Amino acid sequence: MDASGAGEFAAIERLARIAGPLAPPEVGIGDDAAVVRGPDGGWLLLAADTVVAGVHADLTLSDLDDLGWKAVAANVSDIAAMGGCPTHLLVTVAGPPDTDLDLLYRGIVDAARTWQCPVVGGDLTTSPVLVITVAVTGTLDGPAILRSGAEAGDGIWVTGPLGLSAAGLRLLKQVGKGATAAPAAAHRRPRPSVAAGLSAREAGATSMTDVSDGLIADLGHLATASGVGFTLGEVPVGDGATLDEALSGGEDYVLVFTAPAGAAVEAAFAGLPAPVRIGTCVADPSVRTLQGAPLATVGGWEHQWH
Amino acid sequence: MDASGAGEFAAIERLARIAGPLAPPEVGIGDDAAVVRGPDGGWLLLAADTVVAGVHADLTLSDLDDLGWKAVAANVSDIAAMGGCPTHLLVTVAGPPDTDLDLLYRGIVDAARTWQCPVVGGDLTTSPVLVITVAVTGTLDGPAILRSGAEAGDGIWVTGPLGLSAAGLRLLKQVGKGATAAPAAAHRRPRPSVAAGLSAREAGATSMTDVSDGLIADLGHLATASGVGFTLGEVPVGDGATLDEALSGGEDYVLVFTAPAGAAVEAAFAGLPAPVRIGTCVADPSVRTLQGAPLATVGGWEHQWH
Repeated sequence: MDASGAGEFAAIERLARIAGPLAPPEVGIGDDAAVVRGPDGGWLLLAADTVVAGVHADLTLSDLDDLGWKAVAANVSDIAAMGGCPTHLLVTVAGPPDTDLDLLYRGIVDAARTWQCPVVGGDLTTSPVLVITVAVTGTLDGPAILRSGAEAGDGIWVTGPLGLSAAGLRLLKQVGKGATAAPAAAHRRPRPSVAAGLSAREAGATSMTDVSDGLIADLGHLATASGVGFTLGEVPVGDGATLDEALSGGEDYVLVFTAPAGAAVEAAFAGLPAPVRIGTCVADPSVRTLQGAPLATVGGWEHQWH
Repeated sequence: MDASGAGEFAAIERLARIAGPLAPPEVGIGDDAAVVRGPDGGWLLLAADTVVAGVHADLTLSDLDDLGWKAVAANVSDIAAMGGCPTHLLVTVAGPPDTDLDLLYRGIVDAARTWQCPVVGGDLTTSPVLVITVAVTGTLDGPAILRSGAEAGDGIWVTGPLGLSAAGLRLLKQVGKGATAAPAAAHRRPRPSVAAGLSAREAGATSMTDVSDGLIADLGHLATASGVGFTLGEVPVGDGATLDEALSGGEDYVLVFTAPAGAAVEAAFAGLPAPVRIGTCVADPSVRTLQGAPLATVGGWEHQWH
């Protein structure tokens, strides 16, 4: 969840600097989830996300149960983006005394059941503003897929169409809370795919992240972490979404990953929606193009990109 | 952290009911930390606490670094209260754009280093109100010590003097932020003791919790979970604190535990501050007395107790 764009990224880097690095191969701040040794030596994934009413969600357009769902979905997505499986959730709620906790908890527990990832603890306290924080643990069956492993020549893939959540938000603003079209549902209840993350690993993915802040922003973080550039061709635009929404809309929670040119990617996704190749990593990290045009001059996502 | 007393407890129980129980021996919502199977079968402890500026801390009386420290300390205390060791922290901050993040992070990282429990991830987002949520993982070297294991006849012990944090807050309100007396430091930078939790287990503790909301409130939760009553004698009052502060002041983060009558408790705490026996568990759960007087009629802690 990124409400403050590049500023947030810089501040997180500051925390990373103050906190100091972990000893490799453990991974701390800066990827979708941390990778640490758990009890008895297994790898443990850890992530947390915060949702603030009025900042990440307009409660005149979505209900509290959907807000709870989204808080869980954002965390599940962070684990999926490492190639892991979510296992347990901690939920903390700070909110005004008149918050409809039953409704909020229902959305949280709906999501927890969907991903078989039980809520095992948390905290509740009063606050003038509703702030929901979810932390998640996850397991890995193999090495974590980091943002930093992409190499020049790798193909760039996404695991689903983009822009649906942003299109849904636009629809909700036009039609109001009652909107029932598919993008509205995608906005209210995004469905990150743990299976897609596992398939990406199966396909030999060299790097991966989730589209939480928008494709260009998130792929940009991946490219920066990997020290590569990228050239994009056509990106799959969700039904009802615009190209701009597909490029810069956040909260789609599809995965973007890279894999070597010869990898049998489609075969690894048998039984799941087919991933779509959208581009190629290049050696020059300053190259970031869409259909040949430099990205900084295309479309309306500069507010997130800069 | 409990800003809403009994109301909070009821709402957490509601979440527990909606979420459903874990399969024993896993422990979900309702104890200081959850106890779940980690990767490769080891026991993993999980807890989270939220601190809200203006609710849990008056920023005219304490600085942001102290607030960060306290957010970590509350979590470390939850792990200590299970007889575990904290291992990793996730930190999420939702706050106004002008928040002094460097100062806040410094307090968080000071505490993380004190308990050798690194910050490995988190989130940062804008919010009209500063809300800090810390989640913690921990390991167990033996069975977890729950709130529910106390039996009639068990002695009741605390691992340190009580009321110092409340006395410190009173002092800060009188003297202002510059107050340097010991209780002010105890309020600003509470120091939960992981070693005390381990020693309590060594001593054969049958139940344990931490004093986060006040002795009477927290011991009450333990007694309710265990189905016992309790009779208290003298409680150790911190230097500069009142009896009322010792009984009802929160955030002391000492541990209160029960142990069988014959247990060699002092021996297990060799090298640490000696624990103090303050009372005895009794079979009748309706009995809760202090020096013979029923607790509901004593002193000024009814606002938390009811």
